[in-house]
Amino acid sequence: MVPLGERSDDPVLPDPPQGPLHVARARASFPWKELALFWEGKDTLRFKKTIFSALENDPLFAHPRGSLLSVEKYQELNFLRCKRVFEYDFLPVGDMLGSLPKVLALIECLGMYDWSLATKFILHLLTFGSAIYSSGSERHFRYLPKIFSMEIFGCFALTEVSHGSNTKGMRTTAHYDPTTQEFIIHSPDFEAAKFWVGNMGKTATHAVVFAQLYTPGGRCHGLHPFLVQIRDPKTLLPMPGVMVGDIGKKLGQNGLDNGFAMFHKVRIPRQDLLNRSGDVTPEGAYVTHVKDVGQRFRESLGSLSANRVAIVGMSVANLKLAVSIALRFSATRRQFGPTGKEEVPVLEYPMQQWRLLPYLAATYALDHFSKSLFLDLGELQQGLLGKDRSVRQAELGREIHALSSAGKPLASWTAQRGIQECREACGGHGYLAMNRLGDLRDDNDPNCTYEGDNNVLLQQTSNYLLGLLARRDQGGARIESPLKTVDFLDAYPDILGRRFEGSSPDDLLDSSAPLAAYEWLVCYLLRESYQRLSQEKRSGKSDFEARNNCQLKDDAVALVDVIAPLDFILDSPIGRADGEEVELPGCLALCGVCPTLLHTVHPQARAPCGQRGLMEKADGHLHP
Amino acid sequence: MVPLGERSDDPVLPDPPQGPLHVARARASFPWKELALFWEGKDTLRFKKTIFSALENDPLFAHPRGSLLSVEKYQELNFLRCKRVFEYDFLPVGDMLGSLPKVLALIECLGMYDWSLATKFILHLLTFGSAIYSSGSERHFRYLPKIFSMEIFGCFALTEVSHGSNTKGMRTTAHYDPTTQEFIIHSPDFEAAKFWVGNMGKTATHAVVFAQLYTPGGRCHGLHPFLVQIRDPKTLLPMPGVMVGDIGKKLGQNGLDNGFAMFHKVRIPRQDLLNRSGDVTPEGAYVTHVKDVGQRFRESLGSLSANRVAIVGMSVANLKLAVSIALRFSATRRQFGPTGKEEVPVLEYPMQQWRLLPYLAATYALDHFSKSLFLDLGELQQGLLGKDRSVRQAELGREIHALSSAGKPLASWTAQRGIQECREACGGHGYLAMNRLGDLRDDNDPNCTYEGDNNVLLQQTSNYLLGLLARRDQGGARIESPLKTVDFLDAYPDILGRRFEGSSPDDLLDSSAPLAAYEWLVCYLLRESYQRLSQEKRSGKSDFEARNNCQLKDDAVALVDVIAPLDFILDSPIGRADGEEVELPGCLALCGVCPTLLHTVHPQARAPCGQRGLMEKADGHLHP
Repeated sequence: MVPLGERSDDPVLPDPPQGPLHVARARASFPWKELALFWEGKDTLRFKKTIFSALENDPLFAHPRGSLLSVEKYQELNFLRCKRVFEYDFLPVGDMLGSLPKVLALIECLGMYDWSLATKFILHLLTFGSAIYSSGSERHFRYLPKIFSMEIFGCFALTEVSHGSNTKGMRTTAHYDPTTQEFIIHSPDFEAAKFWVGNMGKTATHAVVFAQLYTPGGRCHGLHPFLVQIRDPKTLLPMPGVMVGDIGKKLGQNGLDNGFAMFHKVRIPRQDLLNRSGDVTPEGAYVTHVKDVGQRFRESLGSLSANRVAIVGMSVANLKLAVSIALRFSATRRQFGPTGKEEVPVLEYPMQQWRLLPYLAATYALDHFSKSLFLDLGELQQGLLGKDRSVRQAELGREIHALSSAGKPLASWTAQRGIQECREACGGHGYLAMNRLGDLRDDNDPNCTYEGDNNVLLQQTSNYLLGLLARRDQGGARIESPLKTVDFLDAYPDILGRRFEGSSPDDLLDSSAPLAAYEWLVCYLLRESYQRLSQEKRSGKSDFEARNNCQLKDDAVALVDVIAPLDFILDSPIGRADGEEVELPGCLALCGVCPTLLHTVHPQARAPCGQRGLMEKADGHLHP
Repeated sequence: MVPLGERSDDPVLPDPPQGPLHVARARASFPWKELALFWEGKDTLRFKKTIFSALENDPLFAHPRGSLLSVEKYQELNFLRCKRVFEYDFLPVGDMLGSLPKVLALIECLGMYDWSLATKFILHLLTFGSAIYSSGSERHFRYLPKIFSMEIFGCFALTEVSHGSNTKGMRTTAHYDPTTQEFIIHSPDFEAAKFWVGNMGKTATHAVVFAQLYTPGGRCHGLHPFLVQIRDPKTLLPMPGVMVGDIGKKLGQNGLDNGFAMFHKVRIPRQDLLNRSGDVTPEGAYVTHVKDVGQRFRESLGSLSANRVAIVGMSVANLKLAVSIALRFSATRRQFGPTGKEEVPVLEYPMQQWRLLPYLAATYALDHFSKSLFLDLGELQQGLLGKDRSVRQAELGREIHALSSAGKPLASWTAQRGIQECREACGGHGYLAMNRLGDLRDDNDPNCTYEGDNNVLLQQTSNYLLGLLARRDQGGARIESPLKTVDFLDAYPDILGRRFEGSSPDDLLDSSAPLAAYEWLVCYLLRESYQRLSQEKRSGKSDFEARNNCQLKDDAVALVDVIAPLDFILDSPIGRADGEEVELPGCLALCGVCPTLLHTVHPQARAPCGQRGLMEKADGHLHP
């Protein structure tokens, strides 16, 4: 199916229509097309235009907004749209690994249209499909063409009613029966029902079900993924022994059918165990190349890290939309003004700028972080597929786990707060459903929860950092990592001795000031947490208790708290005490916070579209 | 109609049902019934029980939650429920002024059931009805019985498409025609359409319409309220010349029909001008007892202050619900635990306590503040009705305006953030619509916007405080106010000289520490803003420009920012450096933040149910 509306003589970046925004746009101090081209690259821009043009010209994608439809109608429409996206085949699966920026762009475009559509697509192709591909083996590859054609439709069933964060606590069982060479999938009670599973509510025919694997004799080998057919693809009626349904309305993403399932002794062929990290012989012996149960478990959950990285991008896309809506509204909405004169666009008020422009800056910073982390993830996955068992590959896995565990909270919370600020900054009009800020907030909200609750995830990063410090402290090992994001910590005693020596506004406006403040803060919080943890352990507390008592407000939070010191610097009275005009806070944010944040979150961040030296150039554009 | 289910032998506080929460409840270190009785008073508790019992036993009030219905069905049901509430007549209108705590309790009960119902009820009876009563005169009182019986149904039409905050910019006109002794109500264009008006969408028959009053000759006397019939009460069809309809789905409160209206030269009798602050003679002469246009305008908008005070209570009710839902869930939801042992209720984790208990404390603090401010408002309104024109009455009006302008942002933002934290703290289950946290967040959200955008309102408090400082600075006038909330500012130079001298955890835990920090902070920010404002004015800037440049992050925000220094103190490393166990953060918040916040926000706050010495007693209960 050829996407409509894509003509090769279309400019990639057409002029915006003349309208009330023209006045504000004409005042830009930089050439926006040049910036857009530089930021995205021509290929990605063209790819996005292809997708958007196709959706714009296809009546199936004509809105009304999903939140204005009944849940049933919305879910039905969303399924049809998902099928149509597969037909468009914007990015053939075979090309995905070679064009990661396009994968991210595809997710972003579908999500900007509607996250219910994007998550439905991702859950089927990238979560379900990848699990089959990367947790299974050759014997499962026959399913792949059926996945690409949506002949079967899939979901990823990990979470249970009573267990989300604590994956090891899942209680669905898979007992092997050698007499028939089958596994018996069973839910012992209601609390062990699979729950929240996206696509499971109404549309999935197959599920990757995580269950505790038991071999004859009753030995448990831990959680393993099984491919289980849950519905008849022709009738969508449940398979015998499967009780499956929709969990009901959620705060958002209601086009996605989240479901539950209970299995009553459902028998599946032995071959449908996804056997990459462990297998069972026809006779019922358990075999694995991975000795450690923990590592086996982590391998089978490998795709969760990818999902977290994707969520960074999803959050940024939401922030882009919200900030655009709020800024455009603010540039045209007039309210109050000097006595007797025309009312002033609210964007001209310092208060409105203070509320919105830092989120504009955060959008740029996080967008770059997201793209860069996605490329790093690609490198990691190349290694995994190539069965790279080097030390560097293992270190890279740990580092990306730590980065995504802090990056997802940073991005999803920034987006959540930013959307709320945009909603409020648009006043009553922001509260009208048709203006979309509500949908964005509601659709972004689960980014704070799924693939790991943000607070719990931060403790993962914290554990990683505390581990590095312990190794340096106890064995003298240098603190360093493949992407070099933690290397500065090696100098932490020196950094803690540093003091801010600036005295003029210029010293504060220099981006090295917040960077130094950030480095000091991370080191300070890390040392505090480390000392407290050591103290707790010395006093005889268990690891579990000691960590709980220390990770209340800990070092990992510093990655988020970087906002606070920057806020302080921006707001410092020194910055204004001499009565001189300083730059607009928003511009200050753009030139100060944005590259700084980029640098601190990810010092080795690659420039988008492969170019280096982005920030100098972007900064030049923004302040010519 | 006698409310069902109210038997005099029912205990006011029955034991909760035995269930999973029993274990947690049994561990309470204080007698909860005694605290509840003390906090609410037996009368109010019994009154609330009467209301809840009536709703529980009436099938019309059987849920499903509104957000699960179509908007049309929800609005229809909500109107029928509103009518039924009038039939129950829980609190006869004649008794309202004498039993203010019950008015607040009534609003709270209806809102805890559903804010769409409460706002519909309030807008008709208290906003529309009060406007007729307090902005009109004897000739309008004939409408009151029809309002109480819902024979006519009302709305309050102030906001227009293009003007919300800037009320003076409204452009609906009312030209007087002496030949027919009528006013001609007219909307010059779409941007002057009344918009957002609650009850106007589908159900109101009458509206209080604010319009610019013109007398023959073309002189404009400013905005005045007019009673305009917009629909036929029998058919609900629009009256001739009125184009009226629903504005569409909102982020929340969708049971309430918010509407728009445009008037095409609609003629109403001269008598339907609500003429308390200004009238027009049959011949067309404008007469008023209020000389100043500004004062006239403020008088006709008097009810907005009452609405702001009510919103404080509405926000607190939302926080109560959200915190209760999240704490109950956390006490029964188990996740992770020491190796090999039973999983631990998530409420036992320090992180979960840190997230939720400060909001529990804030609930108590704000609930007390809300009740107390409501009683002060009652005193103010008694004075207004008694035509008290004393200096004290005027000062009280200004002080309550300043308190409600800071109290509404404080309460609505705290609730908004608190609900979001509760949503996230309940993980995926918090994202299910049936668990109500989404409805609470969505229904609370407009509290940040209506009756004055929070940020704009804070500038009102800021103006009040800056004015007091200017009077002291220029004329030597003492800083004081009828409720004594600002009296401490008179000593601001001394306060700014104070330094924190504590050194032990005990010094920090003493509630005088955050109180002193708060006083210092308010004085510091106030002086900074004052100096900046003076500087801006000296440099030749207009009042408009000078204020905009100064009120970015100004003193008024300190009333909200009180959270920040307290947070700092709670988190201070000194508090834990010696390795001693300190109190749970939540308890600390309860004994430290809560009374402090109460005291600082409102030092003269009356105890609820008329008793003094509440805090000592409540504190005694909480820490026996």
